[in-house]
Amino acid sequence: MKKPIRVAITGAAGNIGYSLAFPIASGAMLGPDQPVILQLVELPMAMNALSGVAMELDDCAYPLLHGIEIADNAAQGFKDADVVMLVGAKPRGPGQTRADLIRDNGPIFTGQGDAIDQNAAQDVKVIVVGNPCNTNALIAASRCKRTPRAHYTAMTRLDQNRAVGQIAKKLGVAPAAVRDVFIWGNHSDTMVPDFSLGYVAAAGEKKPVASAVDAAWLAGDFDKTVRTRGKAIIDARGKSSAASAAFAAIDHIHDWFLGTGDNTVVSMAVPSDGSYGIPEGLIYSFPCRITGPWKYEIVQGLTIDAATQARIDNSTKELLAEREAVKDLL
Amino acid sequence: MKKPIRVAITGAAGNIGYSLAFPIASGAMLGPDQPVILQLVELPMAMNALSGVAMELDDCAYPLLHGIEIADNAAQGFKDADVVMLVGAKPRGPGQTRADLIRDNGPIFTGQGDAIDQNAAQDVKVIVVGNPCNTNALIAASRCKRTPRAHYTAMTRLDQNRAVGQIAKKLGVAPAAVRDVFIWGNHSDTMVPDFSLGYVAAAGEKKPVASAVDAAWLAGDFDKTVRTRGKAIIDARGKSSAASAAFAAIDHIHDWFLGTGDNTVVSMAVPSDGSYGIPEGLIYSFPCRITGPWKYEIVQGLTIDAATQARIDNSTKELLAEREAVKDLL
Repeated sequence: MKKPIRVAITGAAGNIGYSLAFPIASGAMLGPDQPVILQLVELPMAMNALSGVAMELDDCAYPLLHGIEIADNAAQGFKDADVVMLVGAKPRGPGQTRADLIRDNGPIFTGQGDAIDQNAAQDVKVIVVGNPCNTNALIAASRCKRTPRAHYTAMTRLDQNRAVGQIAKKLGVAPAAVRDVFIWGNHSDTMVPDFSLGYVAAAGEKKPVASAVDAAWLAGDFDKTVRTRGKAIIDARGKSSAASAAFAAIDHIHDWFLGTGDNTVVSMAVPSDGSYGIPEGLIYSFPCRITGPWKYEIVQGLTIDAATQARIDNSTKELLAEREAVKDLL
Repeated sequence: MKKPIRVAITGAAGNIGYSLAFPIASGAMLGPDQPVILQLVELPMAMNALSGVAMELDDCAYPLLHGIEIADNAAQGFKDADVVMLVGAKPRGPGQTRADLIRDNGPIFTGQGDAIDQNAAQDVKVIVVGNPCNTNALIAASRCKRTPRAHYTAMTRLDQNRAVGQIAKKLGVAPAAVRDVFIWGNHSDTMVPDFSLGYVAAAGEKKPVASAVDAAWLAGDFDKTVRTRGKAIIDARGKSSAASAAFAAIDHIHDWFLGTGDNTVVSMAVPSDGSYGIPEGLIYSFPCRITGPWKYEIVQGLTIDAATQARIDNSTKELLAEREAVKDLL
């Protein structure tokens, strides 16, 4: 029997957390033969709801779920965690700007960054889902002294999945046929969906996305739909994306641990090593490939056209401004 | 490539439906190599929310999800469905008795029963999750002329999973160690959790539940906790069970289709064939074994002690009264 992997989740009684915990316990994230222990973290005022989530997890009798622990603080909740999923964040209030939101969330992520560094397993892997996720991850990563900085990531897999879904729908093919589409930059509307590497494998043929799909649609509706999808979901559901965000987080961790099966490109916002001129340390979405369990590398050597480069620069500028806004916390 | 299986879900924008659709699309119910087409059904007033759910399903880019169809009526929604999951039901209103609830839901399930018989695949498999699920299933099954009556089932797997979870927690073992605990009767507080066949396989040993666990606890707290768990979840979460109900429905269909792997007992409420003296046709939870894809049989020859028999009789009496209350619909 494999040793259980400890997965800590913040905001575990929230909508994304509720959509996340059960599939993880069922084996969807770490594989069908990997036991898991869930360490669920919430604010003190949400502990009653969290105890209800834990009861429901008990009620599923998941064969792989070897333990459920709940905590009202990060230090306890992250103890010995192998994977930390930072889902909880303060949502944007009425009249708040993105800058206000960043300032509001900053102290949460300094505290959680400290709690990770002081309590989690030394080779902990971190994904930040709570927005603004890139800069929240930057803040958390800035507190690491013991844990590897490259293990602090933020989620742009939802944006990649949305891009794949849009192209699959447009072509009337299954999403599995659309490969190597990815996202550059910030998880905000400055993100850059990139289909230059993308291809469609259907009916025995492998075609570049750029030749399979109408160029005007790719430059117009496709790009805008991917970048503004969050709002469209709120307009339809009356609630923000929950299950799709949860399953994207599952994909991010699943692939990071277990690979994609065929070495396809995955979007991960990771600490820049200076690739493509992105300032070192910024948590930036790059095209990545998984090279082994818990090992990613940024795809190198891509040719970037001038229009895409200008958009990449724009997303970089936004992330630099976000970093500037929280520089006292770093 | 396997032919996709068409799965229709009513109440698909509700809390259980939302917890159900995504794991099904990810392969949790029908297996990791089985494509699926989701046919999501809601009331006309919930179609906007349902379109948001469909958008989020697109946004997950599930490799196995070969189509998403939405409908505001059962006839369209059940067209060619191989599996129909009747999740939507009218909840109990303030001051309503169980009898009122049964009368309120009756017409919904006559309509859905007709829609299944007239539109679904001929060998459709049906699970009713919406309460009162046994009698709702009885009503739906009573409309079948073309489809096999034995394929109309109701969900007591949640109750079984709760029983397993309680015993596992009590013993400090993983839920997978607790086998062959099951439920008799109605999915109501007259249900009878039965551990007479149950055993615990842990640390190389296989022990009957009755000798592994304290008898007073089994007769007292255990029994009561399982039978009244729904209310305890509402008290903690402020909302009724959703994810645990969804995953129990997934377990029910998964095992019915793919088996349990080791021929263990599963609880399914199925049309009685007269086994154990249960009046023929009542939708009654029995211990079942899966004998092949979409084949179950009721475990025969169990010895039932007098106390358990009295409780089984009591649950039968309740189901007969429920049948009497809707006899004009049958």
